[in-house]
Amino acid sequence: MFVVNFKEREELPVELPGSKNATMRWLVGKQDGARTYAMRFFEIKPGGIIPLHTHPEKHETFILEGEAKLLGGEEDTVAKKGDVVFVPPNQPHGYENTHGSKVFRSIDVIPLLKKD
Amino acid sequence: MFVVNFKEREELPVELPGSKNATMRWLVGKQDGARTYAMRFFEIKPGGIIPLHTHPEKHETFILEGEAKLLGGEEDTVAKKGDVVFVPPNQPHGYENTHGSKVFRSIDVIPLLKKD
Repeated sequence: MFVVNFKEREELPVELPGSKNATMRWLVGKQDGARTYAMRFFEIKPGGIIPLHTHPEKHETFILEGEAKLLGGEEDTVAKKGDVVFVPPNQPHGYENTHGSKVFRSIDVIPLLKKD
Repeated sequence: MFVVNFKEREELPVELPGSKNATMRWLVGKQDGARTYAMRFFEIKPGGIIPLHTHPEKHETFILEGEAKLLGGEEDTVAKKGDVVFVPPNQPHGYENTHGSKVFRSIDVIPLLKKD
């Protein structure tokens, strides 16, 4: 068992091509002995983006702060503080922080296995 | 893909015997097609408790608001806003909100399979 503040985890740039002003931290992952899913912390600054992309892993996401346009769903869908976003496997998705001043922060849980 | 506010999910009492002033909501679960892990929202009011218990499923937890005494670890361990708690399988754990006024809220992710 451990307790760690999210700020103690290294802040890494999101490496997906086309991403801008977006970072992530591994909160619980393989380094901690997790085998089937990992918890990550994402931050997208105003004007930042994680562009539309697709992969076999689903997402279970909770929005901590701010809001962002959710790409790949119904037009003008916004994910904001207190919202839950579920992205099934192989569904195109992305986030764009079109808010002028608020930072967008989320907790995202993704499979470590190539299923679900 | 869907977006839903956590308040739209039914608030249920925590059924573990000995729990008090503690509720949970299924944010993403089997009802949504998730097969390997589920995301839940927990709330423990001041004076509330989820007592020490053990099960084969691990926990990956992020604290959204407030603070609580983490039972089962080192004495006087506190989990507070912005902290991540990892509980490995079969390790006794629980939470007690000993703060006088703040509500404790967390996002918890638990396996739906009897492993990890």
